[in-house]
Amino acid sequence: MKDHVYKHIELTGTSAVSIEAAVTTAIKRAHKTIKKLSWFEVLETRGSIDKGKVLHWQVTIKVGFVVEG
Amino acid sequence: MKDHVYKHIELTGTSAVSIEAAVTTAIKRAHKTIKKLSWFEVLETRGSIDKGKVLHWQVTIKVGFVVEG
Amino acid sequence: MKDHVYKHIELTGTSAVSIEAAVTTAIKRAHKTIKKLSWFEVLETRGSIDKGKVLHWQVTIKVGFVVEG
Amino acid sequence: MKDHVYKHIELTGTSAVSIEAAVTTAIKRAHKTIKKLSWFEVLETRGSIDKGKVLHWQVTIKVGFVVEG
Amino acid sequence: MKDHVYKHIELTGTSAVSIEAAVTTAIKRAHKTIKKLSWFEVLETRGSIDKGKVLHWQVTIKVGFVVEG
Amino acid sequence: MKDHVYKHIELTGTSAVSIEAAVTTAIKRAHKTIKKLSWFEVLETRGSIDKGKVLHWQVTIKVGFVVEG
Amino acid sequence: MKDHVYKHIELTGTSAVSIEAAVTTAIKRAHKTIKKLSWFEVLETRGSIDKGKVLHWQVTIKVGFVVEG
Amino acid sequence: MKDHVYKHIELTGTSAVSIEAAVTTAIKRAHKTIKKLSWFEVLETRGSIDKGKVLHWQVTIKVGFVVEG
Amino acid sequence: MKDHVYKHIELTGTSAVSIEAAVTTAIKRAHKTIKKLSWFEVLETRGSIDKGKVLHWQVTIKVGFVVEG
Amino acid sequence: MKDHVYKHIELTGTSAVSIEAAVTTAIKRAHKTIKKLSWFEVLETRGSIDKGKVLHWQVTIKVGFVVEG
Amino acid sequence: MKDHVYKHIELTGTSAVSIEAAVTTAIKRAHKTIKKLSWFEVLETRGSIDKGKVLHWQVTIKVGFVVEG
Amino acid sequence: MKDHVYKHIELTGTSAVSIEAAVTTAIKRAHKTIKKLSWFEVLETRGSIDKGKVLHWQVTIKVGFVVEG
Repeated sequence: MKDHVYKHIELTGTSAVSIEAAVTTAIKRAHKTIKKLSWFEVLETRGSIDKGKVLHWQVTIKVGFVVEG
Repeated sequence: MKDHVYKHIELTGTSAVSIEAAVTTAIKRAHKTIKKLSWFEVLETRGSIDKGKVLHWQVTIKVGFVVEG
Repeated sequence: MKDHVYKHIELTGTSAVSIEAAVTTAIKRAHKTIKKLSWFEVLETRGSIDKGKVLHWQVTIKVGFVVEG
Repeated sequence: MKDHVYKHIELTGTSAVSIEAAVTTAIKRAHKTIKKLSWFEVLETRGSIDKGKVLHWQVTIKVGFVVEG
Repeated sequence: MKDHVYKHIELTGTSAVSIEAAVTTAIKRAHKTIKKLSWFEVLETRGSIDKGKVLHWQVTIKVGFVVEG
Repeated sequence: MKDHVYKHIELTGTSAVSIEAAVTTAIKRAHKTIKKLSWFEVLETRGSIDKGKVLHWQVTIKVGFVVEG
Repeated sequence: MKDHVYKHIELTGTSAVSIEAAVTTAIKRAHKTIKKLSWFEVLETRGSIDKGKVLHWQVTIKVGFVVEG
Repeated sequence: MKDHVYKHIELTGTSAVSIEAAVTTAIKRAHKTIKKLSWFEVLETRGSIDKGKVLHWQVTIKVGFVVEG
Repeated sequence: MKDHVYKHIELTGTSAVSIEAAVTTAIKRAHKTIKKLSWFEVLETRGSIDKGKVLHWQVTIKVGFVVEG
Repeated sequence: MKDHVYKHIELTGTSAVSIEAAVTTAIKRAHKTIKKLSWFEVLETRGSIDKGKVLHWQVTIKVGFVVEG
Repeated sequence: MKDHVYKHIELTGTSAVSIEAAVTTAIKRAHKTIKKLSWFEVLETRGSIDKGKVLHWQVTIKVGFVVEG
Repeated sequence: MKDHVYKHIELTGTSAVSIEAAVTTAIKRAHKTIKKLSWFEVLETRGSIDKGKVLHWQVTIKVGFVVEG
């Protein structure tokens, strides 16, 4: 079995709707330039508040992808 | 640009529905007495279980707000 | 008031839908063999990605239950 | 089942006798102004030393209580 | 010298009296089914409060024991 | 020697000048309402950037003070 | 794609030779009773010393395996 | 309100003068290639010593910036 | 007010009786060679078990003392 | 002495042989595009298991290198 | 290239002026007895407060130096 | 059973060969002046890189030994 190298980058995605949607925002954007994204890990979940309501969920993730040989 | 001071308090909100709803429960209640809430950070996500089902999501957040001069 | 002993186990549940559903997957399965599950805590939220989309949410929880006398 | 909101505050209690007594010092004082204290968690155990003896145990706890609707 | 394998389990013991008694509660119960317990480590010290008094000390420990060949 | 109880609060002070000045901003403001502040601990040092320059140092501190009997 | 549940257990393996061998000791033993081990993570690397030499490497790992439906 | 994606990178800046100057060194250099830097967080403060004096402050920061659509 | 320098050392004290006694064991011994011990912080509480009973409490502390000019 | 800026990236290297070989896999690959790699730090050591044997060591490292003026 | 051994000690320096000056206080004192100090890392930044002003910055550092053969 | 006191010191050993050899370098050196070393724990694994190769493994350990009565 061949050895592999993966690279990890850290992104924050935002969404007015949910934590899952904020993660999806970040992954969808990263996919535009990096095709081989294979996993993510949630590092931090924050948000902005306006008049007692959550304005934006801000979820920071670490995303990993294979680095080609 | 003027210097500011922010205070942070720690709250746990609960909800039978979702993590997002538990956060909203806490923020809505805090907003009754503190009008300038501006951000939050999720510190801990726990829950109670009854007969193999999640009874309540219990999400602990740190909430920040501006302290007036 | 009687003293109690609780045991904690660590599980990862997966779901294509949401973080909450992944937690529920793990708790439902554990409930088949352990009837007294009483609380959980989310330890880690990860996921697998395929073609720029979240394929599976993988949520690791610690679950606690009473150990009978 | 109704949703709840809990607030957490951080206190340090001291005692010349024991860790348990230092925790009790802090809780007893907090109870004077907050009647609904329901749980605590030990965050840090420190102490001052004088002539090779523990002068005071200083135990920092986080205490939680229900915030009325 | 022979190689060994140890397993660790996580338990919470409770006591109305002290932290040490809560640890003992957990170890005594575990000893009923696992004879070779050899060490423990305190992971968390919490408690429940009633009317400004500690009702129960709740101490979570990790306990290790040799796994027979 | 009498037992004491200390309370800790968490604040963020900002300054365009330095980390020390941001801490001072927070302490000076807290002193307006709490006279017995006795110590602080830096929890987090962040800042905002504008056009490649630090616009504001944002330093989060935990501040402790004696709670009167 | 079907949802899965994984369980994690914590083990310490020892070896007089190397860190890798200590991990292998733990996994080989666990494999005797759990056939579906699929991954591990090193949590802690310790050792005992005798006369200025490492007597045993003691490596604690978390091991994960699929829980059958 | 539109959703955003932020990327974070980790840099260490050095300075013979102060912690603030070391942070500035890193931000100024990053600004040459990334125009939209918006915030930073100090992760680690270290330094090299020569003949009992601090030769260089080495401050590691995480810097965040908006990723264009 | 004069500037000071403190040194910290890490010790583990043991006791068959209690956590407090284990801390005292360590401090009493350190006091034999270092007269100016002024504070300590509990880093870790562990113990050895024999036949389902705590044989020894092993408490690791960091101890600080003034370094003379 | 001139001020410097270093950048850190996070990589995972794999190897069927050892932890050291997995680190080397990652560094060798990074060296193809970044010539000035100067240090690394191990962040996480994991692995995949097949039939009770370690199939691949997966070691995550942070690698630092000088950013040219 | 020869193998080396470094030892690390933990010190707290104080200063009425700044964080940098508190670090310098500690390093200058350590240099009196240990000539080969080569690096430090800031572990904790605290301070004492008097009448709403920072009386002393108290910075704890880990200092490393080569241990001669 | 008699109470004991252990002291812990922190060392970094280096080796061009392996992590295990770097640990051994540190322990062998410490043994020259402290005969009763009894255990160690790996705190950090780092290394220096030259031309895409690991020049030195740098492993930081905490070593414990009995302090004579």
